[in-house]
Amino acid sequence: MKTLIKNVTILTMNEQFDVFENGQMIIEDENIIEIGQVCSGDYDQCIDGHQGILLPGMINTHTHLGMVPFRGLGDDCPDRLRRFLFPLESKYMSADLVYHSSLYAMAEMLLSGITTFMDMYYFEDEVAKAADEMKMRAFVGETIVDFASCDSEKPYGGLDYCEWFIPKWKNHPLIVPFVAPHATNTNDLKHLQKAHQLAEKFDVPLSFHVSELDYEMDYFQKTYQMTPIEFLNHYGLLDHRLVAAHCIHINEHDIQLLKEKQSAVAHCLVSNLKAGKGVMPLQALLNHHVLVGLGTDGPSSGNTLELFSMLKMIACVHKTVNHDRSAFPARDILALATIQGAKALHIDHMVGSLEVNKKADFIIVETNSVNMYPLYDPYSALVYSANASQVDTVYVNGQCLVRHKSLQNTSLDLLKNHLMTASLTFSQKALEYAKKENI
Amino acid sequence: MKTLIKNVTILTMNEQFDVFENGQMIIEDENIIEIGQVCSGDYDQCIDGHQGILLPGMINTHTHLGMVPFRGLGDDCPDRLRRFLFPLESKYMSADLVYHSSLYAMAEMLLSGITTFMDMYYFEDEVAKAADEMKMRAFVGETIVDFASCDSEKPYGGLDYCEWFIPKWKNHPLIVPFVAPHATNTNDLKHLQKAHQLAEKFDVPLSFHVSELDYEMDYFQKTYQMTPIEFLNHYGLLDHRLVAAHCIHINEHDIQLLKEKQSAVAHCLVSNLKAGKGVMPLQALLNHHVLVGLGTDGPSSGNTLELFSMLKMIACVHKTVNHDRSAFPARDILALATIQGAKALHIDHMVGSLEVNKKADFIIVETNSVNMYPLYDPYSALVYSANASQVDTVYVNGQCLVRHKSLQNTSLDLLKNHLMTASLTFSQKALEYAKKENI
Repeated sequence: MKTLIKNVTILTMNEQFDVFENGQMIIEDENIIEIGQVCSGDYDQCIDGHQGILLPGMINTHTHLGMVPFRGLGDDCPDRLRRFLFPLESKYMSADLVYHSSLYAMAEMLLSGITTFMDMYYFEDEVAKAADEMKMRAFVGETIVDFASCDSEKPYGGLDYCEWFIPKWKNHPLIVPFVAPHATNTNDLKHLQKAHQLAEKFDVPLSFHVSELDYEMDYFQKTYQMTPIEFLNHYGLLDHRLVAAHCIHINEHDIQLLKEKQSAVAHCLVSNLKAGKGVMPLQALLNHHVLVGLGTDGPSSGNTLELFSMLKMIACVHKTVNHDRSAFPARDILALATIQGAKALHIDHMVGSLEVNKKADFIIVETNSVNMYPLYDPYSALVYSANASQVDTVYVNGQCLVRHKSLQNTSLDLLKNHLMTASLTFSQKALEYAKKENI
Repeated sequence: MKTLIKNVTILTMNEQFDVFENGQMIIEDENIIEIGQVCSGDYDQCIDGHQGILLPGMINTHTHLGMVPFRGLGDDCPDRLRRFLFPLESKYMSADLVYHSSLYAMAEMLLSGITTFMDMYYFEDEVAKAADEMKMRAFVGETIVDFASCDSEKPYGGLDYCEWFIPKWKNHPLIVPFVAPHATNTNDLKHLQKAHQLAEKFDVPLSFHVSELDYEMDYFQKTYQMTPIEFLNHYGLLDHRLVAAHCIHINEHDIQLLKEKQSAVAHCLVSNLKAGKGVMPLQALLNHHVLVGLGTDGPSSGNTLELFSMLKMIACVHKTVNHDRSAFPARDILALATIQGAKALHIDHMVGSLEVNKKADFIIVETNSVNMYPLYDPYSALVYSANASQVDTVYVNGQCLVRHKSLQNTSLDLLKNHLMTASLTFSQKALEYAKKENI
């Protein structure tokens, strides 16, 4: 089955950043087989892009999809993580709720043009099932933590979970299971080492929260006289498998180590800012050619599971931090959401740019909305003007999952109704808890 | 004619911040006559809000609507204002282009829930005409500048323009003409004083750019050993008429003066950040009870003429600047876009909150979009989740201007086609200029 996509401005995001105004692309099954100004090959069906912008599907390198039921609860509450999220999660999160929350979250990501995500949460087998149903490209990581959690009565139960969960999904064409110790300060050294051994044994990635919190930084300084990154490096845990989320509080030495060991960083700017935590030194990381992708973080942290508001936030915040309006031009920011994200997850041979022989993961953003005129520069329009509601069409691995802003294989109302049913107890308990704690 | 609005969560933004879940409001002609949980009055027609959020129309306290043709041109170019915007504007901006750009820009604001704006540009009579046609609540200020401009062959021609333009519009029910010297550094003292005298003579507001640019600050320090605000105060130009746009580089003394003289500030965070200029000290201004509203700035500065992305940006940036996730709770941020904006423009007796006897300027934001579930807290949902494409219904002065996301009195396609025709020469020259200057 061959499909021609025509009448689009194509941002290939390839090495030369080729752009084809009024360009064409042909995909066959899951692959891109021709792309350029005019395609000469034959095709079975044709998609008219109506002057939209065709670009690679966006890549979300850090999120917690099971947390949709938390969205909007206690947003402005101090130390929310320990006061609110951990207790509620431990008591009232269930396999069924994670499954329905993840389905809904995937719908939200697809509708906003995200085609690949890296999730870490509990009951991750449910997330993998949901990703399989939604046909998304997914990295699904089971959380390991030093306290009893919603999916384990004993601390560190995630290690056992990984033992059966990873082999179960390892050969899925679109799904990569991985090991996700929660953070450097919620796993002791012994268990971080065990997690790392597991990742090596199954040859899968490892991801956790690093250098995110003030008290985490203080703890490592007091206990080890090292930064968390130096600590990881010292114990042989820093390597190409790692996707380190946040990395807000990192110094020059940390950055050199990240580069040297080819570890990747998930930049979750919106979530970090909203929590008042600080700004990751993006310019320094890029100067050192560290692999950096973008992460929405969970829906209770960044609130939206889309990257458009992040693109504008990156431009605004990092230009200001560097006091330079020419820093971080729009094209480079869009690269973080696409090809750089693919490099961070080591899947740039498959996705992240639109090139022959790569997988057909792409999106079309419509340019009819009022804020998209005039359109001198499509990179500028996407970064500074567009919002998530303007994604018209989404393909993952050659399959059309969103067309004219609607899910093609399921209905949003259905997913919402199932999630509402699944979260009845949770929502009630959450509101009671918030009232009791005066949040 | 009486209209009942029902099936909405009402955020009144009144002094008590009353919220009515599943509330009702009745308007008669241009006025709100009843609001609460259930309305008892009779009505002629009924608007079903479908569980949307009803709130006051947003107030944009600083913009340049004529500049839509500049949007997306040279976004990441250093010193764009002097290298690019001023030369192009002087040569190729015309009355016709300002008129059609302003119509389009008003459509964009209405579609995103802005019901009142304060514009400063050239050919401001055209902006007033456009506002009259679009039925928006408008403050329209003719720019006065120390060089020949697109609407004046001689420097400071705006002063003469004001002499006929202000009386022409002064008694319009929805339009307030005003005097707009461009900035403290593009008007000499004598002409700033003349502008101020004009504002006094006609009893209208005065607005200009203040304490925005590094070189402006250097100039005032070197020339007067004062900040621009101190300079204005010293010469009797700081008073309740002034809406000072930007105020990025202000100190404690400036803030005290602003408070003392009851001058207002238009906070244009997105535009300031995107230009790498810095962050206005919002917390300090609010601590001193200075009147602060929000401004999108022009479409080439902030790129979108909506305030939703600004709401999230304010939360993110100011929480981080203050290193406190509980600073700037969502409700207070929404207040800046509504009642505080109305206070800054001294129209809070008419608009800015939903109360009996106030004007019916209100919007309904739909909650069906994927990012709006769950909805524990409508303030949080509006600030952290919603985007401009989710505004369903907009009323200004009792007239329905947007319903189900469509303009009611004109068509967006028509406005766009007219603007395209009007900007043919401009667009061509702009692209030539950009190429020549390698922007």
